Amino acid sequence: MEKVKIGLLGFGTVGSGVWKVIEANNNAISKRCRKELEITKILVKSLEKARSAEAPENLFTDKFEDVLSSDVDIVVEVMGGIEPAKEYILKAISAKKHVVTANKQLLATNGEEIYKAAVENGVKVFYEASVAGGIPILNTLKDPLSANQIEEIIGIVNGTTNYILSKMTEDKKDFETMLKVAQDLGYAEAAPAADVEGFDAAYKLCILSSLAFKSSIDVEKVHREGICDITPLDIEYAREMGYTVKLLAIAKKKEKGLELRVHPTFIPSNHPLASVSDSYNAVFLKGNAVENLMFYGRGAGDLPTASAVVGDIVSVITSENSPSYEDSVLGNIEKCDILPIGDLETQYYVRLTVEDKPGVLGKITSILGDKNVSLSTVIQKGTKDSSVSLVFMTHKTSESNLQAAFEEVTKLEGVHKIENLIRIES
Amino acid sequence: MEKVKIGLLGFGTVGSGVWKVIEANNNAISKRCRKELEITKILVKSLEKARSAEAPENLFTDKFEDVLSSDVDIVVEVMGGIEPAKEYILKAISAKKHVVTANKQLLATNGEEIYKAAVENGVKVFYEASVAGGIPILNTLKDPLSANQIEEIIGIVNGTTNYILSKMTEDKKDFETMLKVAQDLGYAEAAPAADVEGFDAAYKLCILSSLAFKSSIDVEKVHREGICDITPLDIEYAREMGYTVKLLAIAKKKEKGLELRVHPTFIPSNHPLASVSDSYNAVFLKGNAVENLMFYGRGAGDLPTASAVVGDIVSVITSENSPSYEDSVLGNIEKCDILPIGDLETQYYVRLTVEDKPGVLGKITSILGDKNVSLSTVIQKGTKDSSVSLVFMTHKTSESNLQAAFEEVTKLEGVHKIENLIRIES
Repeated sequence: MEKVKIGLLGFGTVGSGVWKVIEANNNAISKRCRKELEITKILVKSLEKARSAEAPENLFTDKFEDVLSSDVDIVVEVMGGIEPAKEYILKAISAKKHVVTANKQLLATNGEEIYKAAVENGVKVFYEASVAGGIPILNTLKDPLSANQIEEIIGIVNGTTNYILSKMTEDKKDFETMLKVAQDLGYAEAAPAADVEGFDAAYKLCILSSLAFKSSIDVEKVHREGICDITPLDIEYAREMGYTVKLLAIAKKKEKGLELRVHPTFIPSNHPLASVSDSYNAVFLKGNAVENLMFYGRGAGDLPTASAVVGDIVSVITSENSPSYEDSVLGNIEKCDILPIGDLETQYYVRLTVEDKPGVLGKITSILGDKNVSLSTVIQKGTKDSSVSLVFMTHKTSESNLQAAFEEVTKLEGVHKIENLIRIES
Repeated sequence: MEKVKIGLLGFGTVGSGVWKVIEANNNAISKRCRKELEITKILVKSLEKARSAEAPENLFTDKFEDVLSSDVDIVVEVMGGIEPAKEYILKAISAKKHVVTANKQLLATNGEEIYKAAVENGVKVFYEASVAGGIPILNTLKDPLSANQIEEIIGIVNGTTNYILSKMTEDKKDFETMLKVAQDLGYAEAAPAADVEGFDAAYKLCILSSLAFKSSIDVEKVHREGICDITPLDIEYAREMGYTVKLLAIAKKKEKGLELRVHPTFIPSNHPLASVSDSYNAVFLKGNAVENLMFYGRGAGDLPTASAVVGDIVSVITSENSPSYEDSVLGNIEKCDILPIGDLETQYYVRLTVEDKPGVLGKITSILGDKNVSLSTVIQKGTKDSSVSLVFMTHKTSESNLQAAFEEVTKLEGVHKIENLIRIES
């Protein structure tokens, strides 16, 4: 049987997972491809380091040139980070190698350059593993959902923050405590900003949206807020009102452009996304034909991510003579304006602490009324000291009106602090 | 732009949905295919009937030969039923037309003949819409999950029964009442056996399993039970013990062969499938790399089903030069033995009514003990008359032992009836 030679860039968690999956399932894979997969070169930073999967020593190299000069057919990049991954991918494409990558950060920031190079060189770039690990959402957006205009995508695409929020909800512990637990378990990194501040989710939203809306997306235009300010109190108020708090990556096609935002969100507890707990990921979408659809699965881990990487290798082989998808996205790019966050219209949860004296609530509601912010729920509860916790849930209102109103509210005498402001998805 | 001509067999709910989806989204579709879709012939039973989608009159015909003799590239069969659908599909294949079909009954009973004919004639057969409506599960089993050995599939693949069970659970009403509601809403047919007795789910399980396990499956070998005997009492006991009652289509790969069964099942209420309510469908699967994965969406309806049909049309076009999947399934078929239901090992819920007198429970548990059926839970509740309701939940046990034990139990003096016996999925 003909062999397809693969050069693997990186042999960490995902790279060694790719090795294991091909070892375990090559029989089934080769039946599908009519070709046998063989990893013939593995690029690593250091040849000294112990390896978690047992690949023969002679496959390893610490020089990218060794990979490129060997006659590999497909280059699989699972190193992560912008450089040198970008340089290697562009060199592989110039050398007419197909590329499979799991690199969300690189694609979200430099995707267009890479897709253009692929089209110019007549090779394919597949990147299923870059979003939601093992969940085959990107491939599904290509042919199976191509009869749809995608109207919205709502994703839980970061396992670390979903784990932390799930545990904060179950155990009623605070963010710092649960971050520490997640770090001890290896779910969160020592420098957790990429996850907890929403950067990782924003990269993935970018990639999902560029496929769904066939538009090049500047990740800087994604409105992004992390979960560091979420408290057990907010989660408890959410529960009282029938909601669950999730870090959501949201893209919605509106008449005037695209809404793109990553932020903690109240979502109704009976929404399919609300029950996605622990480190699981899920992507919910609406198409104008298929209606509601949700995909749920492992967003990380060596074998689930490798499932997506090797699935892409198979797709590269079986679709060798099919029209390229990058071309379809780039060649027909729809110019989508990204809407500023102020244009958003949704419901809001706002929690404030105010002085416990008459008239404060009246002044606040009067300012809200002036700015056309109408309230659906007001909860006032005394706290241990002399202050009072005030919680508002608004009807649908414009973000700019709401922000302007609360800017005035903070200046009121007797208003201590706006503790939290969280958008609601209905 | 080059045109792809489509002959549509059937113009009911799905057929008119296909027309609407192509009308609405042809711009996006043609960008993906680099070809424009055009429905050039529509076969209907009667030319007199009013149509729900507005297609030009000159496209309609009541003679299949008109479709075949026109120069269509793809024949789309959305008539349903075995004949004449089978005859038309085989004739289309012989005439070297690609085929897209939504016909689960035909594929579950005559799939092998159709796939073989397709391979012999060098054309493709795609059938995404035959299982779980708009959910792109079959395409996902092809390339995206091809790096996995699928270990199990558990599906809620019949919307009618899921609607009835969901409403029985919410409203605590009985089966007959909720069947009537489903019929009034158009969710269930006047002759409901295909749905409520599990035939429809068995067809779909057959198709799913043949793709997942690359094996030709005889639908007659699927163990099948319907939901007609489920009572609000069973649903209430399930809830008390932390379970939800669902009609599940289950396929599991075991060392000795395949378990294939459709029956009402207790599933833990925190399982992702438990919250799939109303007429929604979902398919949960485990692969040896991807781990747990679930797909959720609309299992029926004109536009969701048409989304799958038109997605298949796109796949036929974009994969024109790719290795055929039918060939992959047929050519490499793994001989899977289908295990008899007696070989099943699982937990069971059993509800009996017995006479309210001392010693009955003791005699029953002694018979169960003799047959190695051990109990995890026993609930005894008095009823309005002089009888007593006894509920057992067993530890994992073999179905043949359990059946043998309860055959003896029914002969005991004082045992009125085994009201229900429901398998538990953990």
